[in-house]
Amino acid sequence: MRDTYHEELDSLSERLVEMTRLARHAVARATTALLDADLNAAQEVISGDEELNRLDEEIEATAFDLMARQQPVARDLRIIITSLHMAGDLERMGDHAVHIAKIARRRHPDSAIPKELRSTVLEMGHQAELLVIKAGEVVSERDAEKALELDSDDDRMDRLRRRLLTRILDPNWQHGVEATMDVTLAGRFYERFGDHAVHVADNLVYMVTGERPNDQERETEGPRA
Amino acid sequence: MRDTYHEELDSLSERLVEMTRLARHAVARATTALLDADLNAAQEVISGDEELNRLDEEIEATAFDLMARQQPVARDLRIIITSLHMAGDLERMGDHAVHIAKIARRRHPDSAIPKELRSTVLEMGHQAELLVIKAGEVVSERDAEKALELDSDDDRMDRLRRRLLTRILDPNWQHGVEATMDVTLAGRFYERFGDHAVHVADNLVYMVTGERPNDQERETEGPRA
Repeated sequence: MRDTYHEELDSLSERLVEMTRLARHAVARATTALLDADLNAAQEVISGDEELNRLDEEIEATAFDLMARQQPVARDLRIIITSLHMAGDLERMGDHAVHIAKIARRRHPDSAIPKELRSTVLEMGHQAELLVIKAGEVVSERDAEKALELDSDDDRMDRLRRRLLTRILDPNWQHGVEATMDVTLAGRFYERFGDHAVHVADNLVYMVTGERPNDQERETEGPRA
Repeated sequence: MRDTYHEELDSLSERLVEMTRLARHAVARATTALLDADLNAAQEVISGDEELNRLDEEIEATAFDLMARQQPVARDLRIIITSLHMAGDLERMGDHAVHIAKIARRRHPDSAIPKELRSTVLEMGHQAELLVIKAGEVVSERDAEKALELDSDDDRMDRLRRRLLTRILDPNWQHGVEATMDVTLAGRFYERFGDHAVHVADNLVYMVTGERPNDQERETEGPRA
């Protein structure tokens, strides 16, 4: 049987996995809101974000409590610290889904996404879901090897974003300033969502191995680099 | 005389203050790069970001080490955890300065900012500097009262961003798609820079008082809310 200390330590992982589930749901609904001008979906994402914020705070409180009472060292301490980082990333992923939902809400009853970009945005939504699902598996299984795959999985998101921007910059782009702004920002939010999923995976690698994948170069990548 | 433990604890604050200094320099130079199409300034911001990343990593390593060896509780533990958060925010502020610098680099030898928006962008740069300077003072002086001012200081940044977007959406806006994208993203990056300065201040409040200012609503604010 596990003691309370280890149960609480395990509860960090469980809450993180729950956060990946909520972040996945949020980005999926935000994509629906954006493509279908679905105001209900947008509102759901916006109000649902509270739950992600609450879990982030719970993880922080548990981590703090564990450190103060149990004074963990080495691997346990690493689990606690990396859990804090991962919770922060997942909370930010929720924020990005909210930002996407708010674009949809501003343009309602119109869709913010011009017809010819719908398939690319749909793919970005799918890719965001795939990334956060995989991040959840990686956390749940503490699989450092799988975690290392997320960086190249995220390359696909970056390629989709570039495709979006290429379309906007095409001389045939006929849409107005609002559409240009909306698509520019939406693209950015999906990209950041993906980046945070990679950060979650990187932290899992550090949790398990004690070594960080070198992510400095990724971190400083520009939005269209 | 202070012992090594307390010296290391103090070194966290000193490094954070140093990070505010570097983040201020970065955003100031990024603004120059943007307004004057100054490629050297842009490169300086991009390569200078390494130093902010390095300090973030140093703070994390020191925090980890202190927790593992000293098993701090209560207030000391809070200092360590909040330092980790603040370092993360400051590192992100550096990233946003880099994103701004990269916009400048992409448009070189042109300036990415149309003439009629120069004064607004200049003000946003100044406001970003003011916010990070104040965040540095707040950390250095552990002044929770002053820290609470940053949230309303940041309202000014949000107003400037709205002014920028109003100009873009004006029927008289004559600039092309590239300018629309550049100004949209630059506005977003300055806004996020300010948000992170507010987070630093919020963490200082928590460090000193043990209570967090309620910042959930701020956190979920959309880019144009």
